[in-house]
Amino acid sequence: MSAAKQNIVIIGAGNVATNLGIALFKEGYLISQVFSRTIKSAELLARKINAKAISDLKQLDPTAIIYIIAVKDDAIEQVAKKIKLKDKIVVHTSGSIPMNILKNVSKNYGVFYPLQTFSKERNLNFKNIPICIEANNKSTSTTLTYFAKSFCTNVQHINSEQRKTIHLAAVFACNFSNHMYTLAESILIKNKLSLELLKPLIEETAAKIKEHSPSKSQTGPSIRGDKKTMKAHLKMLSSNKDQKKIYELVSKSIIDSSKKNKL
Amino acid sequence: MSAAKQNIVIIGAGNVATNLGIALFKEGYLISQVFSRTIKSAELLARKINAKAISDLKQLDPTAIIYIIAVKDDAIEQVAKKIKLKDKIVVHTSGSIPMNILKNVSKNYGVFYPLQTFSKERNLNFKNIPICIEANNKSTSTTLTYFAKSFCTNVQHINSEQRKTIHLAAVFACNFSNHMYTLAESILIKNKLSLELLKPLIEETAAKIKEHSPSKSQTGPSIRGDKKTMKAHLKMLSSNKDQKKIYELVSKSIIDSSKKNKL
Repeated sequence: MSAAKQNIVIIGAGNVATNLGIALFKEGYLISQVFSRTIKSAELLARKINAKAISDLKQLDPTAIIYIIAVKDDAIEQVAKKIKLKDKIVVHTSGSIPMNILKNVSKNYGVFYPLQTFSKERNLNFKNIPICIEANNKSTSTTLTYFAKSFCTNVQHINSEQRKTIHLAAVFACNFSNHMYTLAESILIKNKLSLELLKPLIEETAAKIKEHSPSKSQTGPSIRGDKKTMKAHLKMLSSNKDQKKIYELVSKSIIDSSKKNKL
Repeated sequence: MSAAKQNIVIIGAGNVATNLGIALFKEGYLISQVFSRTIKSAELLARKINAKAISDLKQLDPTAIIYIIAVKDDAIEQVAKKIKLKDKIVVHTSGSIPMNILKNVSKNYGVFYPLQTFSKERNLNFKNIPICIEANNKSTSTTLTYFAKSFCTNVQHINSEQRKTIHLAAVFACNFSNHMYTLAESILIKNKLSLELLKPLIEETAAKIKEHSPSKSQTGPSIRGDKKTMKAHLKMLSSNKDQKKIYELVSKSIIDSSKKNKL
């Protein structure tokens, strides 16, 4: 990358594309185009970052430096089939898709995976977000690293195998823990109580991991072996089979993990 | 409570007792005694808060204003059977145990449940922790409210039924989400990677709920209906039946919840 912040094309207009596009725009990058299958959603993002909206990949600007494919995992392949970029740098942003899916798109390709949960409504600062980079050759790796370091302090070199593991772990740490909040909220709402009450608890549970391994700081009835409370909880969940099953299974897993810790 | 910060007795020396004791001590309360079944653990806390350690309930100081029973849920009843405090205020700190367990201990009893996850190693500021209060009569409720408000801004009046619901929801929001972090860490460690990578993600997942309902901000393969990624994840978990079961069950629950949201 030259010192002047060069031309980027963003393919996609979802959560990742929106957050990345806005972060790059704020950082002074020129985003020439935003592609989405529907022109309306391309426009929604393009407007925010002073880019041109396109809905046809044939219109792709051939002069950009980096092409970022930030679409749903199962749409990456379709996009890859439709574009040829010779020696331009092309990356996807997926945690679970191997780098090689891009091998016929360009001589220089890679992955640019920001390890974070993104929503369109919440524009995140990328400074501390781990950016997991992989590239098919050294010069592409150097350029991507330089590019990532220009707006992020936590750049990691991660291969496709490692990234798959990280993505799986992220599903547990993020999607599944968020779903535990959802279940908590549904239990509260059913009883005319608000999740507001649990917000300091949720915040502290997440904050704790900065100092201690979560396996060491577990609290609650399962880790205490408090069968009476667990039994009462299961009774309270008897009208919701799925929640009851999750309670049983996760409690058992907490107990098993604590046994392993003690060994 | 008089303006001079009066005498408190703490029965218990575990996570809650330690955090509450230290917070009260810092606030200027006189803690006359700390009871624990083993004198050593009573001493460990007593030393920090300038109190006397006891391991025999017969030695209980009869002149305190409030007696706080902060022992394991299934030990509350045993403690309650052993103490008679006439008209002194006695409370327990449990989320799941009804207030009435204390009805034979004193004329004035109640619950003082701080809704938080406590570890001995982490001394928390009680200012924003919701304190759920219940009392068997108005004067006790008034005293407990005044007491709680002296060091906390988030005092809630919650009856035993509501508290049981809140505690169950807290198990999901705290213990179960923390266990999701534990499972994520074990997946990473098995592959020689570190939880360090996921810390910004965990922090953001918890921070998101301040603005949006967790049901609305779910991300990841399950909510996207990305069957290919889910299948690949299940394959990666094939050597760990329990983790695989949790993955299947929670994913299904995420999908079901999203359907309900759309209705």
